[in-house]
Amino acid sequence: MAMSSIRKARGCWSFIRALHKGPDAAHAPQKEAVERVFSGIQPTGIPHLGNYLGAIETWVRLQETQGSVLYSVVDLHSITVPQGPAALQQSILDMTAVLLACGIDPEKSILFQQSQVPEHTQLSWILTCLVRLPRLQHLHQWKAKTATQKHGGTAGLLTYPVLQAADILLYKSTHVPVGEDQVQHMELVQDLAQTFNKKYGEFFPVPKSILTPMKKVKSLRDPAAKMSKSDPDKLATVRITDSAEEIVQKFRKAVTDFTSEVTYEPAHRPGVSNLVAIHAAVTRIPVEEAVRCGAGMDTARYKLLVADAVIEKFAPIKREIEKLKMDRGHLEKVLQAGSAKAKELAQPVCQEVRKLVGFL
Amino acid sequence: MAMSSIRKARGCWSFIRALHKGPDAAHAPQKEAVERVFSGIQPTGIPHLGNYLGAIETWVRLQETQGSVLYSVVDLHSITVPQGPAALQQSILDMTAVLLACGIDPEKSILFQQSQVPEHTQLSWILTCLVRLPRLQHLHQWKAKTATQKHGGTAGLLTYPVLQAADILLYKSTHVPVGEDQVQHMELVQDLAQTFNKKYGEFFPVPKSILTPMKKVKSLRDPAAKMSKSDPDKLATVRITDSAEEIVQKFRKAVTDFTSEVTYEPAHRPGVSNLVAIHAAVTRIPVEEAVRCGAGMDTARYKLLVADAVIEKFAPIKREIEKLKMDRGHLEKVLQAGSAKAKELAQPVCQEVRKLVGFL
Repeated sequence: MAMSSIRKARGCWSFIRALHKGPDAAHAPQKEAVERVFSGIQPTGIPHLGNYLGAIETWVRLQETQGSVLYSVVDLHSITVPQGPAALQQSILDMTAVLLACGIDPEKSILFQQSQVPEHTQLSWILTCLVRLPRLQHLHQWKAKTATQKHGGTAGLLTYPVLQAADILLYKSTHVPVGEDQVQHMELVQDLAQTFNKKYGEFFPVPKSILTPMKKVKSLRDPAAKMSKSDPDKLATVRITDSAEEIVQKFRKAVTDFTSEVTYEPAHRPGVSNLVAIHAAVTRIPVEEAVRCGAGMDTARYKLLVADAVIEKFAPIKREIEKLKMDRGHLEKVLQAGSAKAKELAQPVCQEVRKLVGFL
Repeated sequence: MAMSSIRKARGCWSFIRALHKGPDAAHAPQKEAVERVFSGIQPTGIPHLGNYLGAIETWVRLQETQGSVLYSVVDLHSITVPQGPAALQQSILDMTAVLLACGIDPEKSILFQQSQVPEHTQLSWILTCLVRLPRLQHLHQWKAKTATQKHGGTAGLLTYPVLQAADILLYKSTHVPVGEDQVQHMELVQDLAQTFNKKYGEFFPVPKSILTPMKKVKSLRDPAAKMSKSDPDKLATVRITDSAEEIVQKFRKAVTDFTSEVTYEPAHRPGVSNLVAIHAAVTRIPVEEAVRCGAGMDTARYKLLVADAVIEKFAPIKREIEKLKMDRGHLEKVLQAGSAKAKELAQPVCQEVRKLVGFL
């Protein structure tokens, strides 16, 4: 699940309950099926505009509307590809700073570090014994990631979807909104929950997959591609912490077409439409209004308008990140407190699992 | 490592420091390289004569001569093949009773249950991210075990050698005596220790592989094969808890040859030589003396002599097992206390590992 976005969209995988209230919203949560949302983000760099608009902004809203929400800095996932220890350590704190600066409130959601809750890997081992190897080898992402690797991927890269299933199930999460590219991993999570329940008795809710209305922010250099952290073209991707000058430069160089008018026609004019979509999203106005704002401007001038909107959006977040990064002790404390809360939820579930499997 | 014996010899894998003192025995243990022995046994049934003579008896002697010895009931390994929860739960306690009855002394060695120390799977995950898939797929045992499986083995069956490496390394074990069939898995453990040390700095001792002088007890029905728990011929295998009648019957039906004399010629007369070896081992006399005892007897009569020796050897153990199994609470307490001690050793090591990897 979510792993194409984990990799492609800088390690962000979101299990976010849809904001729109579905038919079951009318029912009060039952004791046996508390609604719970789980979402994880890899500590592998500063999120970009696509991550922010597609996931993090939604996370911030979710903690206001949902009773039980967990956000995890999934550091165990990040080592499925090589990481330097010092960089990883810094990235964990940086990601915590980013999430806090974006508005994640540790009083409203449980913000924690995956590796501090050892129950994740224990449940993962139990689930690993319930899945046949070919099932993992046939996942698109494994095939795509190892197609070019001379010596094959690591066993971690093969089995991380099982660890993701454990991340979700360990908290008996009930709702797992996913992007379209995450459907296959989500099916694995659901299958593993069902396989466990069938073998050991009804225990895990089978988490529901809800396709999120995530905004697909496109590369500024190639509007056919998603904005991505790993884009080799540095002008393609706007990061939350970019300076005003960098943001202006990136939008100025954004690829559009030979028509100077500002319109919203994603199929025919993906470049300028991407700019309109970004403009609408960061200023929280409908797309039509964004187009009206650009009326009479050529795209060159509109680019600067959009750049300004992004700068304005990110400026307070950027200041807050810088402030938070000065206080390493505070970031560590936030993670420790969150991890202690997560552990409190995880331990009894894992204990129950051990009992069901026959370990107790 | 040790997994052919884990499977074939009912889940017993021994990492036992050789009893004979090698050249380094003269040196006092250094602070940085405390000598430590780790051994695990799967809770999947009552050990047989081969397990007892090949491993358990050695374990009992080791706890007298070695400073730091850990014996683990490796329940996490047992679920790599399907287990019923109730049977597994019972088997964990039964195995504990067997080990105690055989003489494992929780005051002298740490006897614990693997699943109660969640650090095993966390270290295993980290090591899983350091090993490439083909390395695991090329292990003989994976190939042998999955050759006949229609839908392939589980991911747990593929990756359990990595969990075994974690079992050993989590306690910074220094010596890992292995049977000949365990050499390949031991190479993986050594490689993983070295890969970790190379990437994150010198940390794990590279455990030394010492081939144990394990007595290979043969099947009573086919002296070309090892005695095995899973032998479909019930007369082939003598279990510690067999009744005197069962033991007599099994030896009576033991396959020998058409020569009635008692001699020790393993290559030419494997059947009767197996009887002599068993006789020598259970009565702790040299093979030559065992042959002398059988002088003038035909093999039919000698079989009864050996059966009597085995009955005498196992009788007090059998009584003790029955006594211990009556006191489930005591068995649980022993495991809990041992697991708490193991955790005390494992936690600081795992904490150090997390620091080195960059999780702290």
